[in-house]
Amino acid sequence: MQQDRFLHRGPNDPGLESPARRRLLVGSAGAMAAVSLLGFIPLARADEPKSLPDYAAWKERSALIVHSTNTMETERGAIGNGVITPSDRLFVRNNLPAPPATITDDPDAWEVNIEGVRNPRKLTVGELKSMGVTTVASVLQCSGNGRAFFPHGASGTQWSVGAAGCVMWTGVPLKDVVEALGGPDSDARYITSTGGESLPEGLDPKTIVVERSVPTRALDSALLAWEMNDEPMPHTHGGPLRMVVPGYYGVNNVKYVKTIAFTENQTDAKIQASGYRIRDVGEKGSPDQPSMWEMNVKSWVTAPLESGRSGRNMIYGVAFGGTVALDRVEVSLDGGKNWKQARFLGPDLGPYAWRPFVMAADLSPGEYRIVSRATDTQGNSQPEGRTENERGYGHNGWSDHGVTVTVS
Amino acid sequence: MQQDRFLHRGPNDPGLESPARRRLLVGSAGAMAAVSLLGFIPLARADEPKSLPDYAAWKERSALIVHSTNTMETERGAIGNGVITPSDRLFVRNNLPAPPATITDDPDAWEVNIEGVRNPRKLTVGELKSMGVTTVASVLQCSGNGRAFFPHGASGTQWSVGAAGCVMWTGVPLKDVVEALGGPDSDARYITSTGGESLPEGLDPKTIVVERSVPTRALDSALLAWEMNDEPMPHTHGGPLRMVVPGYYGVNNVKYVKTIAFTENQTDAKIQASGYRIRDVGEKGSPDQPSMWEMNVKSWVTAPLESGRSGRNMIYGVAFGGTVALDRVEVSLDGGKNWKQARFLGPDLGPYAWRPFVMAADLSPGEYRIVSRATDTQGNSQPEGRTENERGYGHNGWSDHGVTVTVS
Repeated sequence: MQQDRFLHRGPNDPGLESPARRRLLVGSAGAMAAVSLLGFIPLARADEPKSLPDYAAWKERSALIVHSTNTMETERGAIGNGVITPSDRLFVRNNLPAPPATITDDPDAWEVNIEGVRNPRKLTVGELKSMGVTTVASVLQCSGNGRAFFPHGASGTQWSVGAAGCVMWTGVPLKDVVEALGGPDSDARYITSTGGESLPEGLDPKTIVVERSVPTRALDSALLAWEMNDEPMPHTHGGPLRMVVPGYYGVNNVKYVKTIAFTENQTDAKIQASGYRIRDVGEKGSPDQPSMWEMNVKSWVTAPLESGRSGRNMIYGVAFGGTVALDRVEVSLDGGKNWKQARFLGPDLGPYAWRPFVMAADLSPGEYRIVSRATDTQGNSQPEGRTENERGYGHNGWSDHGVTVTVS
Repeated sequence: MQQDRFLHRGPNDPGLESPARRRLLVGSAGAMAAVSLLGFIPLARADEPKSLPDYAAWKERSALIVHSTNTMETERGAIGNGVITPSDRLFVRNNLPAPPATITDDPDAWEVNIEGVRNPRKLTVGELKSMGVTTVASVLQCSGNGRAFFPHGASGTQWSVGAAGCVMWTGVPLKDVVEALGGPDSDARYITSTGGESLPEGLDPKTIVVERSVPTRALDSALLAWEMNDEPMPHTHGGPLRMVVPGYYGVNNVKYVKTIAFTENQTDAKIQASGYRIRDVGEKGSPDQPSMWEMNVKSWVTAPLESGRSGRNMIYGVAFGGTVALDRVEVSLDGGKNWKQARFLGPDLGPYAWRPFVMAADLSPGEYRIVSRATDTQGNSQPEGRTENERGYGHNGWSDHGVTVTVS
């Protein structure tokens, strides 16, 4: 399997592009993986690489940093410069062990309860497929993406930049479903989605269930998605059916969704009541703190990451505005003293998608601190620093996300 | 390997979605393929399926009809409804055996000669990467796509609709390269690209070399591409470097390109002089006949293909305008008597890309002849019939491309 074929290597490890190694793969099912390796510059790490868990074994191992069975990050060098992240390179983050993969054997039979509407009922994916369809490109990003940059050692997966990707979702607009059922209850202020994971015995379900509430304003863009990147929703990413809230942090995009409820209040499940809340370092989570809903404007450089050659270099990166379209991205080669506007690369897939950017730079030998700063169409720009917070959520400061490149 | 795992099945073959078969794959590198199978409805065929050739072994076997070692077509039921065709489902058509896969071991070292410019020179892919970059979505389609519908039995691969896909190309605009070299010779009227395949001994090279000329107007959009769908250009599809002429038929997008020449006349290579020419049935090819350059406006239905259930059905398809942006697609359920405008699905990737379309239809039991008709922004619409021609090129008639669906 792929994860046994490729080990993480330093950028200067000749083994990475060894023709011998490559020839071994030619004509095998791994050929594509071999080819894609050329595009990647995995960062060297001391620790022995973990292998992919079975439910994610189809992923491109060389593109991922395996933090744990439930958390896999895309290598910064594997993010690429595309408008869409190939599924086999997309990060994985599960809050609970995934349900049995057999739930995707017959995806059309999966049932979801729609509650808090005039005519509540249970609908199968097969039925949803005849109620409407839309395709939306949006960035999927973990609330803790960038956590590794917090100096106080925020607890949780130490994501750098790769707990994010831009994917194409296809499904029925939630609005269409709700209108077909008579509309939401008049007192509804939240859309509460419940995941279909089976909960371990002997624990208070409220402390472990994946159940998230988002404000009803999300109804304008939310969809119940059965496809990702034009494939049936992979089990790894929430198939047969996933709640998708474009522009909202990953946790709100509930996988294996089995219930959508329009509610007056937010769920009291721990993941909502105290989890995913922005609070000062040392504080406990509580419902009165800001919840991780709409994402903020953010960008980072994807290439070069460590070394460049003297002369003209193309500097690549990705940028997005959360729920707000992007206006521009500026790049600095001197750690933020001087800025120059970068150019967007490729078609604009809409306000929720990311935009790859590129800037040509003539570099003489030396060391460069390359940073990028995105601004959305409402004038929001990335700050220089961090908003310190206990769990290291929502980091979009441009300084920490820069890279130091040696040009020789 | 995948092609040994999956055999083509009829749409009603329960084996297609057998949970047992699926579980076998869960957690294996084939899991994705298994999942994707659910999206496909391979058409039943009597002949035993051929296996994929080594140079295309990484492809999704269940998504492809293997006509020969050099010709593989995407199953109509595997085309999907996405704005981009996943690489492992994209058709393959080589005019000559592919060069050794080792040419992609070090893609940046591949050299291309730029001739017929003020300062002709040889450039490596590595050098091209610092000269400029663009990402363009465009439809790749074989000139003979639809040949199977010609009643006179046009010789050549019997493509139905699947010798086409929409892919994302990344590379340097040819215009940038040419300007850096002082611009084209004043008498240049054509851009002539030569492929890097090794030619068999003892044959007149002119009769077999893949060398194509396109008018210099193509310089506005042509690029030298080193990536496809955000992966290094696969060897199977012309890597390390491919000439891409957005909106032009596949043959003009020369693979393994080793020479780009600005020339006063078209090449006298057979593939240009007499090949890929529109002529009456029975006539021989000659340079005075129209060459297969810009594609015409076209569309076809991708689902349902054979059977539907009584009630609301979603009818899907894809449409494109070649070098002209698309204006609309109409769908008829009664073989062209009555038409209704369909809705485009997903983001618009630009004038050269295809647009998936969808139309909801309430169908009572019976038989329906479902056809689609696209119109571009210059008012060109698909004709009802064929333009009969010897080799069965450029078929965009809506009638032949329809499907007969039984609703029960």
